[in-house]
Parts: sequence; C-alpha cells; structure tokens
Amino acid sequence: METLKVIKIGGNIIDNPKTLDKFLDTFSKIAGPKILVHGGGKIASELAKKMGIPVKMNEGRRITDKPTLDIICMVYAGKINKTIVAKLQSKQCNAIGLTGADGNTIEATKRPIKTIDYGYVGDISKVNVDTIKEFIVTGKTPVFCAITHEKGQLLNTNADTIASEIAIGFAKKHSVELYYCFEKSGVLNDINDETSVIKKIDTDYYQKLVNSGIVADGMLPKLNNCINAVNQKVNKVCIGKSENFFNDKEGYTTIIK
Amino acid sequence: METLKVIKIGGNIIDNPKTLDKFLDTFSKIAGPKILVHGGGKIASELAKKMGIPVKMNEGRRITDKPTLDIICMVYAGKINKTIVAKLQSKQCNAIGLTGADGNTIEATKRPIKTIDYGYVGDISKVNVDTIKEFIVTGKTPVFCAITHEKGQLLNTNADTIASEIAIGFAKKHSVELYYCFEKSGVLNDINDETSVIKKIDTDYYQKLVNSGIVADGMLPKLNNCINAVNQKVNKVCIGKSENFFNDKEGYTTIIK
Repeated sequence: METLKVIKIGGNIIDNPKTLDKFLDTFSKIAGPKILVHGGGKIASELAKKMGIPVKMNEGRRITDKPTLDIICMVYAGKINKTIVAKLQSKQCNAIGLTGADGNTIEATKRPIKTIDYGYVGDISKVNVDTIKEFIVTGKTPVFCAITHEKGQLLNTNADTIASEIAIGFAKKHSVELYYCFEKSGVLNDINDETSVIKKIDTDYYQKLVNSGIVADGMLPKLNNCINAVNQKVNKVCIGKSENFFNDKEGYTTIIK
Repeated sequence: METLKVIKIGGNIIDNPKTLDKFLDTFSKIAGPKILVHGGGKIASELAKKMGIPVKMNEGRRITDKPTLDIICMVYAGKINKTIVAKLQSKQCNAIGLTGADGNTIEATKRPIKTIDYGYVGDISKVNVDTIKEFIVTGKTPVFCAITHEKGQLLNTNADTIASEIAIGFAKKHSVELYYCFEKSGVLNDINDETSVIKKIDTDYYQKLVNSGIVADGMLPKLNNCINAVNQKVNKVCIGKSENFFNDKEGYTTIIK
C-alpha cells in the first residue's frame, strides 16, 4: 500500500459550508489511500440548545449524558458524516462513513469515573486496522466521525485521538502521515504572529519548547498527541491550515521523531 | 454465496426499544448472509415537532423539504442506524451501517415534480450489488437506513423499495429471500381476523385477490412490491410478524412466482 494519509478536520472547517466544500474539493483530489476524521463543531451544541438539553463542559471536554449522546449520534454520525460522504461522492471520491461501531473498526472503554464523570465518553482500546484496510484496498475512503463503542455501547471520543490512534495502528505495517487541520498556520513561536510558524519540530526540540513555555495551554495536549504518534512509527505529523498542506505551500509545522 | 436474506423492519419494531432488542436478538442469530433495511418510525416526526418543523405528508408519504431532510439524516442515519449497529455488535453480529451514499451503494434520482413536489425524495436507479457483496464476503452485515443519493444529494427513500431493489439486484446472480416484518400476521382473508392468514400467494392468485377486493388500500402497493420482486428472480417474499419467520412457526404469508 502507498503511504496512507490520515487527515483530521474540526469545527473551523465543518462549521462553515463554503470552507468545508473547499476543503473536500482539495481532499477528494489527494492521490493514494486516505482517511478523513471529523469532529462535531458547533452544530451539536446548537441542536442541544434547541432541544433544551444543557451543554456541560469540563476543561473543554463535553460531558456526555444519555440525551447528549443521542444528540452527538444524530449530529456527528447523521448530519455531518453523511453530508461529508455525499459531498465526496459528488467529487468522485468513493467515501464510506463510519463510527467505531461500524464493522467494529474502533473499540473503546468507557472512561472510568475519577473526580469527574464524563458519562458516555470512550478511550480507544483497539483500532481494527485490517477491517479499515479492507475498505481502502477496495477503493473506498473511510470517513470517521468522533464516535467509538464498547461492546455495543456508543461512546463520544476525541477526534484528535481517533486520528492519531488510526495512524499509529496503520504505522505498525505501513507508511503513514498524519495531518491536523487547524485554525492557525501551525505551532507559532509568537502566538500573536501567524508568520512565526515553526517549520520542523523533533522530539528533542519539542522538549525545549515545552521547557521554555512556548508550547502551553491547549497546544500542549495537541502536540503531545503528535509526538506520541511519531514515537510510534508514524512518519510525520503536520499541523496547520489545510489549504497549505497539499499545495506544496509553506505555512505549517511538521513533527518528526 | 449461500441464500441471502434481506429483511426490512419498520416503525412497529423500531419505535419500541424492547421489541427492537428482541428482534435484533433473533436477527443476529440468523445463519448465512443477511442484510437489514430499516425505516424511521415515529422518531423523525417527534424530533421535527420538538424543533418546530411542520410534518407534511401526502398519501402516507413524507414531503421532504431541506429542514426535514436534515431531521431524516439525523434520525435515520444517526440515531436509529447507529443504535441498531451497536446493538448488533453487542450480539456478535458484525454490522455496518450504510446510507446509499456510503460506498455509493444505492443511487437514485430526485422524484420529478408532477402534481406534488415531494422535495428531497429519491427513486432508486441502481443498486451497486458488487460493493454490498464486498461487505458480506468479508463477514459484515450491512444495515441500510432509508436514505439514498443522487450525485451527492442525499434523498429520503422508501425503505420497502430499498429492500426489494437490493433483493432484485442480488437475485440476478444469487439465491435471495426477502422478508417484510409487519404489524399483522401476513395477508389476511378477513382484515379483522388475524387467524385468516393466506399462507401462499403466487402471481395468478394475487390477481384473483386484487380482482375480488381482498387486497386493497395500503396492502396493494406493498404486495405489488412483493410480486415485482418474485417476477425478477427473488426466490420468495415473506410478509408477517418477525417472530414467526425464523422460528419455523406458521403465521405469515409467502409470495412466490
């Protein structure tokens, strides 16, 4: 198999139909095997509000009670996933929409209750690479939404982690690249200067950035995810604006081992 | 390939979690290749009501404007489909949930406007049997919801028709049986007597039933669908209560050529 590209998109692309369409245009033209992973954006919170279901967050993570899980299944697996799949079909990309329950592709365990009960939130225990590969070798492009399962219980799961765990799973036997589409141009030396993109980060340099405080707050878990991936044989992880990744443009950060 | 069983369930099973669970228990134990097709039941109308979107029907068929299509995608492809897929996974049945857009499995055309504009409603133009077969030969059980697509436009599509068109598509090369799970015990001689089930109907007998007025109203298009299927090489079509089909019990109608 040629190098697999795993690409994750989030709210900054999903929430704007024009941006999404432009992205899917680029995505559909990428040659070789590819997998798309998408989060949920604002639509889930908007629907919850309309239905009078309170949105509960803890440190930026959604607390998923039973009514919220219903909303998430409807919005992620129904509305967003099928909109993306259909749009890709119209662009000659043979997409297939999946949760981790479909074909048992991604197994997880419900997060144990410590200080916080996150409810129906899953931590990935196993990516069934061979099943996902069956789709790819038969010419299909898997499109994953941020839902996994544990023995039939659907679980809300972080999309960044789904992307990295899929990439790590494939990297055991295949060449894999992981792309995080981001609202900024990459990891910035100065958070207020979009031109201060750090082009390349390896594990040593990452430690320096953490120690110096340049990488902090929300960027820290994101980059940790990336470093974890390259430490587990993912060839490279790119983080930045999607329009720069596949057009030989600069303006993103590449993370290598 | 062994005889394929295509099984369609509707509101009388979907709307009651206990009935659904019991059905899925039976379904998961059926040996050999199988496909499940499900409609939407009352849940879509309930969600539309909660969100203040008016439900418009014409002769029992839903008129699907843009906000209604959104609801249908959320409820059919999100909530119901993923609930079924996850429950089947918990019962050791490797289900994969699909709309016709996923893997381009079912293509349709938007219904042309004559006296009524049905909106985003699709009439099936092509079932891609080879793609669906790929899932089956790799040990997966396709679970279709009542959504197809035309060049990337999602379309609300009658679940009875999806089931019969899939069966007809496979029947060109394979042995196929089609099962319609129904709230009644089958085609009744006397509509008020559940014990008056007609056990067997062939095309000749069907004409007699139509001419005599025993088959009328809502049963007419349903049976027409069945006759159409057996006329296109589907081995047999059964209509009745799901609990009787797979337990060697009587209490359903079999339609043959």
